Amino acid sequence: MPTVAVDVMGGEHGPDAVVHGVAAVSLQSDIDCLLVGDEARIQKILDSTAYNPERIAILHAAEAIDASEEPRSAVRYKRKASLFVALREVAAGRCAAVVSAGNAAAAIGASLRELTLLPGVRTAAMASVYPRAAEHAGQDPLALALDVGATVRCTADELVHFAVMGSTYARVISRVAEPRVALLNMGRDPLQGDAVLSAAHRRLRDRRGLNFVGNIEGHELTSGRADVVVCEGLLGNIVLKLLESVATMAVDLTAAAAPRSWRLRAGMAIMATGSDGLRALADYSSYGGAPLLGFEQVFIKAHGRSQAPAIGNAVKVAAKAARDGLIPALKAALADD
Amino acid sequence: MPTVAVDVMGGEHGPDAVVHGVAAVSLQSDIDCLLVGDEARIQKILDSTAYNPERIAILHAAEAIDASEEPRSAVRYKRKASLFVALREVAAGRCAAVVSAGNAAAAIGASLRELTLLPGVRTAAMASVYPRAAEHAGQDPLALALDVGATVRCTADELVHFAVMGSTYARVISRVAEPRVALLNMGRDPLQGDAVLSAAHRRLRDRRGLNFVGNIEGHELTSGRADVVVCEGLLGNIVLKLLESVATMAVDLTAAAAPRSWRLRAGMAIMATGSDGLRALADYSSYGGAPLLGFEQVFIKAHGRSQAPAIGNAVKVAAKAARDGLIPALKAALADD
Repeated sequence: MPTVAVDVMGGEHGPDAVVHGVAAVSLQSDIDCLLVGDEARIQKILDSTAYNPERIAILHAAEAIDASEEPRSAVRYKRKASLFVALREVAAGRCAAVVSAGNAAAAIGASLRELTLLPGVRTAAMASVYPRAAEHAGQDPLALALDVGATVRCTADELVHFAVMGSTYARVISRVAEPRVALLNMGRDPLQGDAVLSAAHRRLRDRRGLNFVGNIEGHELTSGRADVVVCEGLLGNIVLKLLESVATMAVDLTAAAAPRSWRLRAGMAIMATGSDGLRALADYSSYGGAPLLGFEQVFIKAHGRSQAPAIGNAVKVAAKAARDGLIPALKAALADD
Repeated sequence: MPTVAVDVMGGEHGPDAVVHGVAAVSLQSDIDCLLVGDEARIQKILDSTAYNPERIAILHAAEAIDASEEPRSAVRYKRKASLFVALREVAAGRCAAVVSAGNAAAAIGASLRELTLLPGVRTAAMASVYPRAAEHAGQDPLALALDVGATVRCTADELVHFAVMGSTYARVISRVAEPRVALLNMGRDPLQGDAVLSAAHRRLRDRRGLNFVGNIEGHELTSGRADVVVCEGLLGNIVLKLLESVATMAVDLTAAAAPRSWRLRAGMAIMATGSDGLRALADYSSYGGAPLLGFEQVFIKAHGRSQAPAIGNAVKVAAKAARDGLIPALKAALADD
């Protein structure tokens, strides 16, 4: 099994959540992990929990980038941060994948400095899963959206690359046979939107090896129409944060209701058992893995709020991506023009 | 009281919902309405219901634009449609405002042909209310977002005009003393986004008479941070349709659960009494009025799915906008540069 470099610092719950997540994985699987961060703190947390020492190594990093830190200056000046040290392990080929729950903007900026873009790709995309209603039995309850914040505006070329990479990721990692790819737009009409969107629509339709189902509108995002939703970073970032806030609101309502209203709590509990859609909505932010796609290396960004189980999921996704050949599959799909 | 021209054709529930909505208004208020559409059908519906004949007149229109019709060709060829006839009544000064529940894209296209843009304004914006959690007692449970689909991309100038118009509308119609205006963006940093967004941020911050609270992110949209959210049409359209689908999902879940699960239905009912936020979310699409801002005339676009009470609300909002001087207030605010 490949070794996964895990950036221990930077998550909102600190090193404890990350180390505990990796410790659990070490007992459940044959995945090797390299914990990168403050060695003394990591060892202390490991000493307090059960883990398999044959599966875990530690690499010291002198600095850490905080979740709330200004990302531009962090990327410029903190080259000894655990994030950078972990990325360099992967770039040098000593690890097969990297996982971080830290500052997303710093993760993107540092990756653009330390990793190598895939042939033909001009920019990376952050992908994120989100919950949607499945249209048929067996359909994944999560769809993939990209880009959700590595870019602001995109060219038609870049949107096509995002589509190819997202489709490949869904095929290799989520095991969707022919992922339905859609372009986020204001309407179904192929000419809808501006020149970039209509050009992207035309090129996606004509692209070999892509199951393009056309434009998708805002109200269809939570339907099963698309497995992969393609958009520029500004749009994806705002849409995903909005979806996440709705999910968080549902969870917060339950929690806040506990001391105040047994009726509301009962209502939420009943809904959670009655509706798969709402349960998925409430759970998804702890799901784990959002890939940063476009590099020759595997990078899985765990949510900043990840607790130990979400870290464990992210590590498993990273190991799976390395083991199942995500990068060679991406190269083949991008070359198939 | 001013006369409101009401486009009777084009809503998804047909002329019945529109005529019944206006008939109810005629019994409750002193608003005069001009029903524009197929005269024989309108008269037949009126004959079947209670109304005040002193408050309602009919103007025949030979054509109608269907809700699902291709808007570009409808705007080009159906100049005798009820939408166009109603707009011309307002443009000629014979009516003070127009209300339509028809095809939104056709409404925008026809308005750009028949109405006059306000001095200095280069394009109109469709505004839409949406529900959010109030931050303090007395805060309106609805915020206003614009543009939500009259434009695709915008210049910084246009975004500033949208901010001024949205703020004025919230002040005059929703009676918010100093509406908090925010710019939808990927982060709080004033330099976030592209050059258009950072220029818009700077100009909004410096604009007199505007209570600009900075950038707003996707997850803050449902909070009480902003009363007016400014964005380009592509972004606003997708975000509002997504919010609406979440609201519709909540309502549909309740309805669909009725025959299947008393538990789910009970859960939804409990939540609806337990949470103002969710109730507002479920109700807002029937609220009524979305103004098309940027013209010398008042245009209130009712939702295509409007039933009679929503039409009634839209007519009341239109009459209020005319009576309370929305257009002079918009001119004054736009001139205050």
